[in-house]
Amino acid sequence: MFRPQIKVLDCTIRDGGLANKSQFKLETVRAVYQAACAAGIDYVELGYRNSREMFSPADYGLWRFCDEDDLKRVVEGVDRRGTKISVMQDAHKATAQDVLPKEQSVVDMIRVATYVKDIDKAIRLANSATEKGYEVSINIMAISHAAAPFLDEALQQIEEETKALAVYVVDSFGSLYSETVDFFVKKFQTYLKTKEVGVHMHNNQQLAFANTIEGIIKGANYLDGTLFGLGRAAGNCPLELLLGFLKNPKFNLMPILDVIGQHIIPLQTEIEWGYHVPYMLTGILDKHPDWATKWMATPQKHNYVAFYNQVTELPDQ
Amino acid sequence: MFRPQIKVLDCTIRDGGLANKSQFKLETVRAVYQAACAAGIDYVELGYRNSREMFSPADYGLWRFCDEDDLKRVVEGVDRRGTKISVMQDAHKATAQDVLPKEQSVVDMIRVATYVKDIDKAIRLANSATEKGYEVSINIMAISHAAAPFLDEALQQIEEETKALAVYVVDSFGSLYSETVDFFVKKFQTYLKTKEVGVHMHNNQQLAFANTIEGIIKGANYLDGTLFGLGRAAGNCPLELLLGFLKNPKFNLMPILDVIGQHIIPLQTEIEWGYHVPYMLTGILDKHPDWATKWMATPQKHNYVAFYNQVTELPDQ
Repeated sequence: MFRPQIKVLDCTIRDGGLANKSQFKLETVRAVYQAACAAGIDYVELGYRNSREMFSPADYGLWRFCDEDDLKRVVEGVDRRGTKISVMQDAHKATAQDVLPKEQSVVDMIRVATYVKDIDKAIRLANSATEKGYEVSINIMAISHAAAPFLDEALQQIEEETKALAVYVVDSFGSLYSETVDFFVKKFQTYLKTKEVGVHMHNNQQLAFANTIEGIIKGANYLDGTLFGLGRAAGNCPLELLLGFLKNPKFNLMPILDVIGQHIIPLQTEIEWGYHVPYMLTGILDKHPDWATKWMATPQKHNYVAFYNQVTELPDQ
Repeated sequence: MFRPQIKVLDCTIRDGGLANKSQFKLETVRAVYQAACAAGIDYVELGYRNSREMFSPADYGLWRFCDEDDLKRVVEGVDRRGTKISVMQDAHKATAQDVLPKEQSVVDMIRVATYVKDIDKAIRLANSATEKGYEVSINIMAISHAAAPFLDEALQQIEEETKALAVYVVDSFGSLYSETVDFFVKKFQTYLKTKEVGVHMHNNQQLAFANTIEGIIKGANYLDGTLFGLGRAAGNCPLELLLGFLKNPKFNLMPILDVIGQHIIPLQTEIEWGYHVPYMLTGILDKHPDWATKWMATPQKHNYVAFYNQVTELPDQ
C-alpha cells in the first residue's frame, strides 16, 4: 500500500526556528535528531545555513547558521542508520562560501528556499552545492503569491539549469486548498521532467496534513513534516500524522511519540504555535502570518473582528 | 462559485455538550444562537432532547434535554432571521414522547443519531418527528465501524421508510481520510435517491475541515461545524474555516469571529478540546475517543508510547 519513492523530511528545528529565532537547546536538537534516526525518517533538517551578515549571532541561535562544529555535537554518538541531514539556505540571505565541500561536512542535502523573484540567486546557490557534492532541493516559498508567467519561467529554469533532486511547493501562508495543491503539483510536474515534486504545507486552515495527502495522491514524493506541527505561526504538517498515513513499515512511530511527549510538548510554555483565529484569517486572506503573530502579542489578541478589519485594509503586497 | 443547496449547521452546544455534560451557561447558549442567526447559518443545534431516564438531571445540564421552556429563554428577543433550530435525539437514549407537536415547539428539525444496529429505533423516532411536523435527519454514528452489509441495509431502509431530508456520515472516531469520505458519500448517494447526504467530521487527525471539503466536492449538502471546533475530544470541523471556504455571500463571518473571541476561547479554561496526541492515536487506530480522554486525565498524559501500547492491546470492539 505504500509508495517506496516517498521521502519524508522532518524540519522541526528549522521551521520551528522561525518561531524562536532558532534558539533551541543542543539537548532538544539532539533528541529530535535521535528520534528521527530511530524512526527511520529519510531526512532531518537541523536548521538554516544562513549568513551572519544577515542575522546577528547575538539575536539568533546556533541553528540559524548550523556551523559544522555545532552539527557534529548533534550527531556525536547517535546511531544514524539511514537518516540524512539537511540544512536550508535562503536564496536572499545566504552565501555559497558558507558551504564546505561535502567531504568536510556532516550535511547531506542543501535545501535552497526562494521566492520566485530570487530564482537566479537560488539556482546559483543550488549549483554551487551540487558542485561541492551535496544533494540539493529548491523550495519555492509563498507559492500562493507566485505570478503565473514568472513561476512557469522559474520552473523551466530549474529543470534546465540545475541538478536539484526535488522542487517543493511551499504554502508559506497556509492558504492552499486541495484544488490549489492539485494545480501546483501538476504545474510543477509539467516542467520538472527529471525532478521530484515536494510539498511543504502550513496549518493556518488546519489543512497542512490534508494538503500533504493531496500532494501524495497527485504524485509528490518529498514530504515535509514537523513534530506535533511545531513551526512558524500555525505550524506545519504534523509528522506523527504523516507517518500514520503512509503505512511504510520502515517507519517506527514510537520514537516520534516519545520525543514529542518529552521534548516538544514542554516547548509550549515558550513558543505559541498551532491553530489560532488570527493565523486562520491570514491563511484565508492569503497574507503573511507575521501580521497575525504581531496581533497575538497585543492585549487585544482575541478581538478577531478588529484584526480582520486591519488585515483586509492592508494594501496588496 | 458557491452551491446554494448547501446547508450549514452549527452544533457547538450539542457536540460541545459531550465534553462538559451539556453544562453550558444560558448566556453562552444565547450568544452562540445569536451569532449563528446574525451570521446567516442555516441551522443551529442547541443540544440533545434525550431522556431523563437515561441521563440524570443532577449530572447533566439543561442542554442534554432541551426543554421547550429552556429553548424559549435562548431565543427570546433574538432576531432569528432565517436560522432554524435543531435538537438531537440519540436513537437508544431518547423517546418520541419527549417531542411535542411542532406547533408547540421552537424546534424546526429533529436530528436522530444512531448506530447502524439501532436503525429501527432511529426510524421510529424519525417518523414520529415527521408526523409531528418537524424536518428530520438521521445521523449514522461510528461510520468507520459499520459493517458493510448492515450499512447497506440501513440506508435502503432509510430511503424506503422515512421522510428524512438528510442522512449524515458521522466520523465519530476521526479516523476517515479523503478516500474513505469519498467511499461513504458515494455509497450513501447510491441508496438515498430522495435525500441529501450530510457530513459530520471529527478532528482527531486534523482532517475534520478537509474531510468536510471532500464531502462537499462529492456532493454532500448538509455540513456540520462548531465554533473554533469545540466538541468532544479533538473536536469538530471549525465553523469559521467552513464559512471561509464556502464563499456564499449570505454568510457573515464577523459575528462568528466575535462570539469565538468572547465566549468560546474563555471556555478553554474549563474544557480541553482540540488536537492532542492521544486523540490522534485513537483516530489512527479507529478507536473510541473516550480511551484518550481517560488517559489525558492521568498524570502520565504525555506518555504517548504507553497509551499507544494500551490502546493497541484492547480487544476489537
